[in-house]
Amino acid sequence: MRAHAQRPTSPPASAVRPAVDAWRRANERRILDEAFAFFAMPNLASDSVGIRRVASHLLAQFGARGFTTALLESPTGGPPAVFAERLVPGATRTIVLYAHYDGQPVAGAPWDGDPFTPALRRFTNGVGGEAVPLPMAGATTDPELRIFARSASDDKGPIVAMLSAFDALAATDHAPTVNVKVFLEGEEEAGSQHLGDMLRAHAERLQADAWFFFDGPVHVSGAPQVVLGVRGVVGVDVTLYGASRPLHSGHYGNWAPNPAVAVSHLVASMRDRDGRITIAGFHDDVRAPTLDEITAGRALSATDDSVRRSLGLTRTEANGAALGERIMQPALNIRGLRAGGVGPQAANAVPTSASVSIDFRLVPDQAPARLRDVVNAHIRAQGYDLVTDPAAAASRADRERVALVQWDDGYRSVRTPFEAPVIAATQQVVAGVYGRAPFVAPTLGGSLPLFHFADVFPGVPLVTVPTVNADNSQHAPNENLRVGNLWDGIALVAAMVTELAPAWERSTVVP
Amino acid sequence: MRAHAQRPTSPPASAVRPAVDAWRRANERRILDEAFAFFAMPNLASDSVGIRRVASHLLAQFGARGFTTALLESPTGGPPAVFAERLVPGATRTIVLYAHYDGQPVAGAPWDGDPFTPALRRFTNGVGGEAVPLPMAGATTDPELRIFARSASDDKGPIVAMLSAFDALAATDHAPTVNVKVFLEGEEEAGSQHLGDMLRAHAERLQADAWFFFDGPVHVSGAPQVVLGVRGVVGVDVTLYGASRPLHSGHYGNWAPNPAVAVSHLVASMRDRDGRITIAGFHDDVRAPTLDEITAGRALSATDDSVRRSLGLTRTEANGAALGERIMQPALNIRGLRAGGVGPQAANAVPTSASVSIDFRLVPDQAPARLRDVVNAHIRAQGYDLVTDPAAAASRADRERVALVQWDDGYRSVRTPFEAPVIAATQQVVAGVYGRAPFVAPTLGGSLPLFHFADVFPGVPLVTVPTVNADNSQHAPNENLRVGNLWDGIALVAAMVTELAPAWERSTVVP
Repeated sequence: MRAHAQRPTSPPASAVRPAVDAWRRANERRILDEAFAFFAMPNLASDSVGIRRVASHLLAQFGARGFTTALLESPTGGPPAVFAERLVPGATRTIVLYAHYDGQPVAGAPWDGDPFTPALRRFTNGVGGEAVPLPMAGATTDPELRIFARSASDDKGPIVAMLSAFDALAATDHAPTVNVKVFLEGEEEAGSQHLGDMLRAHAERLQADAWFFFDGPVHVSGAPQVVLGVRGVVGVDVTLYGASRPLHSGHYGNWAPNPAVAVSHLVASMRDRDGRITIAGFHDDVRAPTLDEITAGRALSATDDSVRRSLGLTRTEANGAALGERIMQPALNIRGLRAGGVGPQAANAVPTSASVSIDFRLVPDQAPARLRDVVNAHIRAQGYDLVTDPAAAASRADRERVALVQWDDGYRSVRTPFEAPVIAATQQVVAGVYGRAPFVAPTLGGSLPLFHFADVFPGVPLVTVPTVNADNSQHAPNENLRVGNLWDGIALVAAMVTELAPAWERSTVVP
Repeated sequence: MRAHAQRPTSPPASAVRPAVDAWRRANERRILDEAFAFFAMPNLASDSVGIRRVASHLLAQFGARGFTTALLESPTGGPPAVFAERLVPGATRTIVLYAHYDGQPVAGAPWDGDPFTPALRRFTNGVGGEAVPLPMAGATTDPELRIFARSASDDKGPIVAMLSAFDALAATDHAPTVNVKVFLEGEEEAGSQHLGDMLRAHAERLQADAWFFFDGPVHVSGAPQVVLGVRGVVGVDVTLYGASRPLHSGHYGNWAPNPAVAVSHLVASMRDRDGRITIAGFHDDVRAPTLDEITAGRALSATDDSVRRSLGLTRTEANGAALGERIMQPALNIRGLRAGGVGPQAANAVPTSASVSIDFRLVPDQAPARLRDVVNAHIRAQGYDLVTDPAAAASRADRERVALVQWDDGYRSVRTPFEAPVIAATQQVVAGVYGRAPFVAPTLGGSLPLFHFADVFPGVPLVTVPTVNADNSQHAPNENLRVGNLWDGIALVAAMVTELAPAWERSTVVP
């Protein structure tokens, strides 16, 4: 058996879900009480005391469920990871369940209520309504209600799903059929600065046949999805220069070089009007998408027209190509342009400099270092001397020849092959749990530092299985988790640790 | 005789200057006392009480020197103009001496001392030093000293020169040989909003054979210059749109149109890398410079290399063409670019809009209205629907097709022909006063609303005769007037009203 790029119509139902659901219905109050206690704990990675309090809490929770536990430290510092392990006699495969227990800051726009005082609320037209009491013990609650709290969706909710799934399995006499390891990162929202060192330091303990990332939302339609990769990213700011002081545009305006014109020509030289990247060598290392990936990408794009409409667009780039196909290509995005002033700030002057900020999204097998070389060569070919130090640029006697080029480190793309046997098995388990086939996204358009896992565990499939609602306001005020998505998450974890291994065995047999 | 496009080497000396200088040397204290009293008077056009106090003062000053005087009001409001007139029996020609008595605001960076407490100071390396006492009555002062005060140079100093010139002529028994009218504007620094109406309302009183504008600085080298025109100007802000909200550049970055890319292509479509304007029809109404104008423009550009060096440039546009030639061409200057964020403000997002602000400098015979049509047509030809209302743009279902185009009124260029007989005469008088031939600038690169004068007095030569130092910090803190430039100004006014008419007679005779 191999993965389906197109969604099958009638997936076989999960055998374990009914039992898990029955237990959950009898224990909703208990699950929510535990979730609320967890959601109330501040979890900013930079709060070194608070973040370790959360780690200790989780260590105890997994310990109480029969897991062997440990706090893993990175040799270079940062919050610990919570590690938990349950080995299953006779199991032939080992999986790691990943989530992160740290959360985004709560600064910025005000919240309706305190972000660390969880509340159950109605949710109508995108707005949280009045608080609703928790259900009585033994009673059920409306799955359309939302739990409002920072990290409820991103990414504490999936951890609650893991804990409750093992409770449900124990209570219903189901046992895992794979060795289960749990790895809960503590600084994902702070950029995973120590993750690579952490994984290298504990690589032996973290050996597995696949990693499952319980992070991110399901498809905007509510359908489940399985995500096989992420794009890489690398950013650059380029500044071009004119005269050393702003010049009267009447006296000098068509004599002194105008850096805003120069930066416009530079951008135009990199990307045509229809989104094609015109930098020589830019596509050299691009691994072409497979037929399965293209088919899956097209399936994801059924909603393109409605998304276009909701964004006030009638035209999209590449002659209207499917979004799901476009994100399998590398991208050049202009993040910003700055020169002089516009509107009331416009002065009749030639600006002294003009800047463009660019982010490049990378696909396999583009490496940030090679991308930098290719783009630098393009800028040189436009006639500029490259410098990396603003002071060096400012002091040049030929400022009009200088491009200040400031790159960030960036990271590469990771994409698990569609053909990996575990992908077909995962599709099957997810389909059984949700009663509908998942979308399979060959890649997210966005970027996550999954390359750390790929570096330390080369060849091990990395699969993202999102469970939370798409309208969860992650990274924003009033983050929330739909109760029904939490119930689905419990069922999914339970099914993954019981039903994945047999399906995986079957899918590995060569037909 | 005709005007010299190239500077003659040995101009005949002014006959009147020695007498005027002798009188001035004996009266420096008196001249400076009068200047200080005038410079101490706040003169912001919007200060309706203060500005009329200055007008009354000037009315009295010219009245005391035998002029018929009047305050001229515009029918549409604003500060009055000060009008003064001395008719000369037998004179066959009438000239108007123009200056403006209002000044720039003093807000912004702090001054060294109070801007309305004039002070005589040394000036070294661009910085004013300690105050120096006024000379004793009958004594002379160092011409390198500077008078620090708001409007000392722009444009009260030339008014002092006019008043003192008539004192000098009276004291030395010289009489004007032309009918002299004086027109002192009161809202030049506030945009001359009522000037057109003012000139139309008093057109009969202001009839003359030439206008002389005593405003602006001499050449940066210290050489005198005679300026024959100004460029026109018209500005526009163009905003292009992407999706109705900022989009994650990974998820949507090479699918949703990026307005920063679009605006870069729009700019690149208007102006090539070497400054050539590539808008169809843009040059249709451009009157080609005459050979005299080109010769004069090149003469002005002897300093181009040193200006380039001082600005940190090695290359200028149009393959290094002379600045003096370039300003006889129309220009397209990018005043600013704005989209998303750069540097620390850069987010990995597709911006919702991108704006460019442009000023066009116009030459004869480009009209702002026709220029607007030509540029609008160019933007339409790039595939955009033009709107002028931001709300209309924001609500479009096809935002990517819309260009918000916001023009200002602008005004046209004015350029007095080199061939006008009064130009040769003016060159000769200026050369005689300064002992060196003036640069003749066919046009300023910058723009002034001289078109009001050209509209009401068509065909009447409009000639600018600057007298103040180029490093006067006009419009900025620590504005100052070099004493020697004030002395030159007195001599120039005296010579213009006595020596211009005979030279003009001679230059009008067909050889």
